[in-house]
Amino acid sequence: MATTVEKQVMVIGADESEQSAYALEWTLDHFFAPFGPNSPFKLVIVHAKPMPSSVVGLAGPGAAEILPIVDADLKRMAARVTDKAKELCATKSVTDVTVEVVEGDARNVICDAVDRHHASVLVVGSHGYGAIKRAVLGSVSDYCAHHAHCSVMIVKKPKTKH
Amino acid sequence: MATTVEKQVMVIGADESEQSAYALEWTLDHFFAPFGPNSPFKLVIVHAKPMPSSVVGLAGPGAAEILPIVDADLKRMAARVTDKAKELCATKSVTDVTVEVVEGDARNVICDAVDRHHASVLVVGSHGYGAIKRAVLGSVSDYCAHHAHCSVMIVKKPKTKH
Repeated sequence: MATTVEKQVMVIGADESEQSAYALEWTLDHFFAPFGPNSPFKLVIVHAKPMPSSVVGLAGPGAAEILPIVDADLKRMAARVTDKAKELCATKSVTDVTVEVVEGDARNVICDAVDRHHASVLVVGSHGYGAIKRAVLGSVSDYCAHHAHCSVMIVKKPKTKH
Repeated sequence: MATTVEKQVMVIGADESEQSAYALEWTLDHFFAPFGPNSPFKLVIVHAKPMPSSVVGLAGPGAAEILPIVDADLKRMAARVTDKAKELCATKSVTDVTVEVVEGDARNVICDAVDRHHASVLVVGSHGYGAIKRAVLGSVSDYCAHHAHCSVMIVKKPKTKH
């Protein structure tokens, strides 16, 4: 039972890619910074931390020893991504932000976050937009564009040359 | 050579669908109305008017007589779409708007408009989001999400029930 005063939720998926960092900056510049504290949105930044087993593959000899090492790496990456995101928000004076790390496949983690937060907008960066003339969206942004139960903003980094 | 003072261009595709009308209203409410005359964007509404031949199919006996009638219908539809869009903008006190009707396939017309106006955001409605549990994007929004040379906002009409 949202009232008009209540802020809508905007979820943004964050990973370690340049496109993801650009998407967050673009979003802060367009939906938050110009409004000061009166942005119509509350921001939820979600980082999907892959499960160590999905990175290593199915169990084999030595898997039990490797998994904790991989998991420690994935945790460090999650910390880097979330720290960088928080820092960028602080730089743009955006304070109404929640940062979450959820373990799982990015596609499911992001779409689930949309449902859990009753988000009205999901922002994702687009991947693989470069050398090939026709843009190819990453599988995560493509999946989310189709499956998220809200409006979806796919942020593309402009090329330096038109 | 855009300066930071120059407004960025937002292109929105408009057709006669309910989703399209919702996408325009959502866009006006989120990117324009809250800013008054200081919206960071200039709005370009583009309606792709299908070519009569694409509607009728390839020439056959009587095609010469039918084409002008079909064309008149398509022109009336274009007028309805653009009038409705202008009216909605006026209701929301959004005045910095260009409305264009361009003949051709919607996918090409919209992506060409993005290039022609050096748009930084394209807004499209999503189609076919309803009875089926998993959202299926319309071919136009799907094509544009992949091919437009700018960020793409796919506006989905929320279901009445969560």
